[in-house]
Amino acid sequence: MVDNNESLSQFLASAVDAAHKAGEVIRKGFYQIKHVEHKGSVDLVTETDKACEELIFNHLKQLYPTHKFIGEETTAAFGTTELTDDPTWIVDPLDGTTNFVHGFPFVCVSIGLTIGKVPTVGVVYNPIINELFTAVHGKGAFLNGNPIKVSSQTELMSSLLATEVGTKRDKETVDATTNRINSLLYKVRSLRMSGSCALNLCGIACGRLDVFFEIGFGGPWDVAGGAVIVREAGGVVFDPSGTDFDITAQRIAASNPSLKDALVDVLRQTE
Amino acid sequence: MVDNNESLSQFLASAVDAAHKAGEVIRKGFYQIKHVEHKGSVDLVTETDKACEELIFNHLKQLYPTHKFIGEETTAAFGTTELTDDPTWIVDPLDGTTNFVHGFPFVCVSIGLTIGKVPTVGVVYNPIINELFTAVHGKGAFLNGNPIKVSSQTELMSSLLATEVGTKRDKETVDATTNRINSLLYKVRSLRMSGSCALNLCGIACGRLDVFFEIGFGGPWDVAGGAVIVREAGGVVFDPSGTDFDITAQRIAASNPSLKDALVDVLRQTE
Repeated sequence: MVDNNESLSQFLASAVDAAHKAGEVIRKGFYQIKHVEHKGSVDLVTETDKACEELIFNHLKQLYPTHKFIGEETTAAFGTTELTDDPTWIVDPLDGTTNFVHGFPFVCVSIGLTIGKVPTVGVVYNPIINELFTAVHGKGAFLNGNPIKVSSQTELMSSLLATEVGTKRDKETVDATTNRINSLLYKVRSLRMSGSCALNLCGIACGRLDVFFEIGFGGPWDVAGGAVIVREAGGVVFDPSGTDFDITAQRIAASNPSLKDALVDVLRQTE
Repeated sequence: MVDNNESLSQFLASAVDAAHKAGEVIRKGFYQIKHVEHKGSVDLVTETDKACEELIFNHLKQLYPTHKFIGEETTAAFGTTELTDDPTWIVDPLDGTTNFVHGFPFVCVSIGLTIGKVPTVGVVYNPIINELFTAVHGKGAFLNGNPIKVSSQTELMSSLLATEVGTKRDKETVDATTNRINSLLYKVRSLRMSGSCALNLCGIACGRLDVFFEIGFGGPWDVAGGAVIVREAGGVVFDPSGTDFDITAQRIAASNPSLKDALVDVLRQTE
């Protein structure tokens, strides 16, 4: 049985160990990268990314040889792996790559475990400011071991919104992005962009942020860990259109339950 | 003589002491504010803001009774104080008020000293992630005691840009803001919004950010500390139009010297 409580706690502990190992590599690279030449810095990102994914996969594969694995680096190299009902570790070894290159301290390891395609264990670790977000389905969400919950904000007008501008720079995408921002500025208190999808989800989970959406991020590895953390903190994860969240769709929104409809309404008006 | 090196070091030490004292008050409020009722949270912001300004002003006035003082809270209560050539402490006791209310960890104390209207001593302290930025005219800039410098980026296309959406929500301002973002997205690598003008300037100073501009922030207290920190880190501070920086104008841009012209060009195209 993979879904009993004891196994889930075990899976969480293993993911935390793996995240700490990878976090050490990220921390070292983070403080080194500004001192290498430009070409070298590209290599250091790639190396750090690959080294961390290898570390995490090796650690977890040794413990759970029958589980499946989806990672950003592996997918980039070997193409998409289909998500099945099997226990599947979905890993972004280094979320916030641009931040890493520039030394902006929002970088993290994101590890999620889906069982029956449902995000069930989540670990997001920012090794620079030393924040470890964890959650197990049905067991609550934690920041450095302390329970966290989503904000109690009920008015979109008083809400802090997070989103990102992504990496696509075709006119259609850029116009859609700035049109959404334009409409939302009349409806929320203010806007933050931190450059890490996984950390934005954790910001929702601990109530630092009230509403978040992102359209067109990298893949399921950006959200698999954060989704369970948000839900276990009492929040909701959904498609920006208001339909159910699809982990493979590269579209996500998150908030406390009170703010969901208001966010979806504004986003629909901008379509 | 107020402009000899010994006095300047003394002024810096006094400002750091004051920032630490205020930082303690901010840190306490930061971890408390999510637990008070909404109306109470508005009060806690005002109280923290006022308490910190009083702490800082009392500390510095006792040491430098002949100096002048400009603070965000005092100005809000008693109107604008004219900036003269006298040594003048310009203080934002709590920059990033919205972040403070929401528990988003980009908040800081900003203290600047102008002499002959020139920003000469700067202290910006984020008590949540414990980062203390300091600078004295001609003596370099430091983060927690270690020397810092601006990024060596020479291409706007590879640059990380920071800006803010401000607080004004009339159509003209919002459209101008999102039009600038739209144009800039084709010209930079990515965009960050952290919600603190003073910390954005420090982000430029330590090379985490490559280019920053903000139009329509609160007042000179948002930039007096950060301006000297950027300059002492080898950066340039200027008006977004490319003309000289005017500390009273509520307009600022900052970067390393290589990126200034490229940023100004793009901003001019959006006017």
